[in-house]
Amino acid sequence: MLKRKDLLAITELAPDEITTILDTAVSFKEVMARDIKKVPTLRGKTVINLFVEPSTRTRTSFELAAKRLSADLVNVSTSTSSLTKGESLLDMAKNLEAMRADLIVLRHPVAGAPHLLARALQCGIINAGDGAHEHPSQALLDLFTIRERKKTLSGLRVLLVGDILHSRVARSDLHALRKMGAEVTLVGPATMIPRGIEPWDVQVAYNFDEALGKENQKPDVIIMLRLQLERQEKGFIPSLREYSRLYGLTMARLRRASPDVLVMHPGPINRGIEISPDVADGLSSVILDQVTNGVAVRMALLYLLMGGKTE
Amino acid sequence: MLKRKDLLAITELAPDEITTILDTAVSFKEVMARDIKKVPTLRGKTVINLFVEPSTRTRTSFELAAKRLSADLVNVSTSTSSLTKGESLLDMAKNLEAMRADLIVLRHPVAGAPHLLARALQCGIINAGDGAHEHPSQALLDLFTIRERKKTLSGLRVLLVGDILHSRVARSDLHALRKMGAEVTLVGPATMIPRGIEPWDVQVAYNFDEALGKENQKPDVIIMLRLQLERQEKGFIPSLREYSRLYGLTMARLRRASPDVLVMHPGPINRGIEISPDVADGLSSVILDQVTNGVAVRMALLYLLMGGKTE
Amino acid sequence: MLKRKDLLAITELAPDEITTILDTAVSFKEVMARDIKKVPTLRGKTVINLFVEPSTRTRTSFELAAKRLSADLVNVSTSTSSLTKGESLLDMAKNLEAMRADLIVLRHPVAGAPHLLARALQCGIINAGDGAHEHPSQALLDLFTIRERKKTLSGLRVLLVGDILHSRVARSDLHALRKMGAEVTLVGPATMIPRGIEPWDVQVAYNFDEALGKENQKPDVIIMLRLQLERQEKGFIPSLREYSRLYGLTMARLRRASPDVLVMHPGPINRGIEISPDVADGLSSVILDQVTNGVAVRMALLYLLMGGKTE
Repeated sequence: MLKRKDLLAITELAPDEITTILDTAVSFKEVMARDIKKVPTLRGKTVINLFVEPSTRTRTSFELAAKRLSADLVNVSTSTSSLTKGESLLDMAKNLEAMRADLIVLRHPVAGAPHLLARALQCGIINAGDGAHEHPSQALLDLFTIRERKKTLSGLRVLLVGDILHSRVARSDLHALRKMGAEVTLVGPATMIPRGIEPWDVQVAYNFDEALGKENQKPDVIIMLRLQLERQEKGFIPSLREYSRLYGLTMARLRRASPDVLVMHPGPINRGIEISPDVADGLSSVILDQVTNGVAVRMALLYLLMGGKTE
Repeated sequence: MLKRKDLLAITELAPDEITTILDTAVSFKEVMARDIKKVPTLRGKTVINLFVEPSTRTRTSFELAAKRLSADLVNVSTSTSSLTKGESLLDMAKNLEAMRADLIVLRHPVAGAPHLLARALQCGIINAGDGAHEHPSQALLDLFTIRERKKTLSGLRVLLVGDILHSRVARSDLHALRKMGAEVTLVGPATMIPRGIEPWDVQVAYNFDEALGKENQKPDVIIMLRLQLERQEKGFIPSLREYSRLYGLTMARLRRASPDVLVMHPGPINRGIEISPDVADGLSSVILDQVTNGVAVRMALLYLLMGGKTE
Repeated sequence: MLKRKDLLAITELAPDEITTILDTAVSFKEVMARDIKKVPTLRGKTVINLFVEPSTRTRTSFELAAKRLSADLVNVSTSTSSLTKGESLLDMAKNLEAMRADLIVLRHPVAGAPHLLARALQCGIINAGDGAHEHPSQALLDLFTIRERKKTLSGLRVLLVGDILHSRVARSDLHALRKMGAEVTLVGPATMIPRGIEPWDVQVAYNFDEALGKENQKPDVIIMLRLQLERQEKGFIPSLREYSRLYGLTMARLRRASPDVLVMHPGPINRGIEISPDVADGLSSVILDQVTNGVAVRMALLYLLMGGKTE
């Protein structure tokens, strides 16, 4: 069990907590490989997916995780939500808790929204993405995927490539990787690298080709980030074509890296922008493994936070 | 069991039916306090949430009630509904019945819509709010909450405060309270008190302060109603500020009442309009109890209307 | 079991496969008549309703079919979908498969979309309507309904009436009926009869009254199609009134047919346009039987495609 009721950010997790989560997810991944991929572990528990920002992938992943643990799951999204009547998020969440929700999975456009709920409520809160702040379950599934393939996290060299500035995935990933002893290099145009990152203890590279091919320092893992297509209009990049030419992962570029490098992406992917289709679907890609592992990691989180007993 | 298949309005319930519902809800509230808050009572039954008006709180409450009784629940809302293709409500409901729905929970903007379905269908109908007419499960959970705290309903003095004219909650509450022997005073601006209410056997007050503080007639319960913010534009109130000054429940005003008065609100609350935050979150408030009790009462309704056997 | 993982079109089914599906649906219809209308057959299986076009009736029918087989069902619709972020349908579906979906029920506005997924994915695909192409589960439930009443399909005379050109139901129905040995006559205005239909081996009639009343050739079944009300604007019909006068099924017109003729409609019906209310609700109508049978047929499909074992 974790000695916490919430998962709000990677920054608050100790390395041994991360290891517990990953180890637990291993056994749930095994459950997902069974013919009957369901256990009664959380029967009678109530999980609410409270999504104030649209998402299919993350919502569905949590929904399947809850159902495969036999919990009751209810989806609440803004389109059907009384937030449209002017109710505050906190009042809404207090209502869900009063209905005896055991855990609320919150996606919200404002950084810190899950922390607000966590402080005010007795029930558990999982941050499923808050603004540009964190998306901790994504980072945990990324760690799981890397560890599964590379057997360790410590000492690995990882490139995080793209719009670091606006990416909650990047923020969660880099903290998670650093905590587990990996070396992280942020790669992207200067306009998309946050300022004041010295405390993060990461390296920065503006030239993707150099970062890929450095002798004796070739990366073990490349995590490509989704480019929000509206960034061009906002002046962060001169054009999609230019961005793609400099920071898109093509097969030609991938050949500079080691043959056993892992290519990852949190999805949904922009084929032909930050990653070419042959790379996304190629032998180095573990993008769909990430998706599978996401369900297993979220089963582990629900299980560990709600204090379920093993079957 | 109730000898009826539908719950359409408080007006049609006999006091002993109300007592049966409240008593049954007591045992379901106990189920909700268990570690595994779920019973197999309605396994294999099908409940449809047919919401033609948006609602999070009521839809979620019925959804949790159904799932905690192990019924299968399907949500149908207009946004995904073939009502947008011009199908009539009755045809839609007949289709759901043909799919072997056992009970349809209907929220609809038109008063009388649930009655129409109830007459035409064999399956059960619960009115979850029809226009400005009734919202009977809300009134039942209000009765439950008052009875739980005050041990009785008979002889209690209750203030119903706000926009009585447009409120289905007010209508259901006052009928429910009168049936159980409570005395009801409607409080609000003259523009928001319906005409022709003599048959209802209630009192009317236009001055909230006087109604709160009358010697030897202090209220036991104050039910604040939500103010629809668009009422100002439609000319029912001069301004929100004016409404709030005269009919908002503030801590200063609450001090005029007895120390053991209960403050209730059907939610979602407009903090600072009809109720101040310190009152909503204060010691007299049982607003979140209402939400918890709502699930228990709806479990009782589903159970009693679908004729489930006890475990 | 069917020796296929997908149901994409009636055209690809052999008559004995159709018979297997209908026979299996008979036993699931019996399950739906029980007090506890649920079997554990597909416990631990995951079904995704992926609806890229709105639908209540079909989505709900599949949802109930899955739940009554104890499968876990997740709804994904475009309104909450990352397709709005520009993800391709195929990438979305690959993600759902990676989450260990066993079967995806797809409704999509583009003909051939389910075939694309079926070729690319290991998991099963059911076409729940693709553009104007096919809607095979609708045709199967139509066959089931006819066979239940007429005891056979072979040799029956069936009229398919209305906008054949734009109707995926018509296309699936006529192929299904021809495969099972029924004779099909398409009835409608020339603008709504597709060209090049000679290979289909069907007859065409432009005069509904004549087709109904032909001596010794009276139809056993009349399947009325829904008229998309926007067809008038697009010039396919001169006016709704004119269409209704020539091709609407009224009681007067129905009297030309045999007394034991079956009247069917895939729904949702436009009362007073293609069918008059007294016919839709009359003794010849089996429209609501179709809806009931739809759930049973879809249970059979889920069961046969996912290779579940009998209880």
